[in-house]
Amino acid sequence: MHKLVLIRHGESTWNLENRFTGWTDVELTATGVAQAQNAGRILKARGFDFDKAYTSVLKRAIHTLWHSLDAMDRTWLPVQNAWQLNERHYGGLQGLNKADTAAKYGDDQVLVWRRSYTTPPPALEESDPRSERGDRRYAALDSAQVPLTECLKDTVARVLPFWESDIAPDIRAGKRLLIAAHGNSLRALVKYLDGISDDDIVGLNIPNGVPLVYELDEQLKPISRSYLED
Amino acid sequence: MHKLVLIRHGESTWNLENRFTGWTDVELTATGVAQAQNAGRILKARGFDFDKAYTSVLKRAIHTLWHSLDAMDRTWLPVQNAWQLNERHYGGLQGLNKADTAAKYGDDQVLVWRRSYTTPPPALEESDPRSERGDRRYAALDSAQVPLTECLKDTVARVLPFWESDIAPDIRAGKRLLIAAHGNSLRALVKYLDGISDDDIVGLNIPNGVPLVYELDEQLKPISRSYLED
Repeated sequence: MHKLVLIRHGESTWNLENRFTGWTDVELTATGVAQAQNAGRILKARGFDFDKAYTSVLKRAIHTLWHSLDAMDRTWLPVQNAWQLNERHYGGLQGLNKADTAAKYGDDQVLVWRRSYTTPPPALEESDPRSERGDRRYAALDSAQVPLTECLKDTVARVLPFWESDIAPDIRAGKRLLIAAHGNSLRALVKYLDGISDDDIVGLNIPNGVPLVYELDEQLKPISRSYLED
Repeated sequence: MHKLVLIRHGESTWNLENRFTGWTDVELTATGVAQAQNAGRILKARGFDFDKAYTSVLKRAIHTLWHSLDAMDRTWLPVQNAWQLNERHYGGLQGLNKADTAAKYGDDQVLVWRRSYTTPPPALEESDPRSERGDRRYAALDSAQVPLTECLKDTVARVLPFWESDIAPDIRAGKRLLIAAHGNSLRALVKYLDGISDDDIVGLNIPNGVPLVYELDEQLKPISRSYLED
């Protein structure tokens, strides 16, 4: 039997400011830091240990991982950063206030962008200063691979190949993994592992900074799934 | 031409308490954190950028790297942790106060332990609770590979094979590397790069938290060597 632990990053400055974030690289708040430290403390207190960690290339997830590792005294663990674990790209909504956006486009439209599996928000223009094309951290990708917007289906389509190429082989090799990532990249994993439908996955909320523990069988099918809380 | 940047970790709690540290995994002080952040700010201001970072498995070096990367907005860079870049093992002196040790063994003896290339301090007993044999972070090593004491020659003998196997190939492949490590593991690199004698290397001091920049030719021989200061 294998164990796999997922953590959604702690509260970020744009969570607090009620802005759409996506691939924008915002910081954790002090609350977010405390959530991350607490996640590490709980994992250590419950006897969890790890051989390797994965995270995205966005600092709210990386810092969540770092603070959790510090709290477990596992600062030295190998960490693999992967753009494939980034948050869903939020297109032209990135940076906008959620209430302002609802006032401008209407609640129903915003709900579609937030909760439809297949409808992406309006795409960023390539020339938009908010676009990540040209950001050094994505230099190894073809420019067209750097999204200008994504629906959750698009996010799933980059997370699952990475699961197959990197994460699953590590688990099969016996590595105990900790994955610190984002609401939608983790939804993609949970959808796959638990076989959740396209309609249901968009309504599934993963709380910030609470370790989600999967026990997986030899075929990496879930035996159990639980949140670790105080 | 290649550039390589070395940083010795910032001030640690045991630097401040005047205790022998070695492989003991102590924290940075607030001064040490500020030194690390400042190193990152200077590197960014001078236009340095990196493709990958190396550090040891000791948190004073890892945290120095993390704070420097944050200050450069390079939180997402790949990091390779290597025990081979750890500080020189300080044997039975680890944890002892330097002044107390001098009072007990005499200044001359302590100077030999600190400044001889070939004389190690007294070895730890394997059963000593201070021994790192049994520490999970060294589980991939044969127990006999985990030192019970080291002279600088011993440190050089583990750092240089790692230079050849990992660091030098990365540099030849065009990667711009940042290495955050320790006084003696960096002495080992500097000794090799600059061809410094056994007698002279023990007296060479590398300051905490100041980036040391090497320009290397195609054969990885130094063209220049300079500290980056405010």
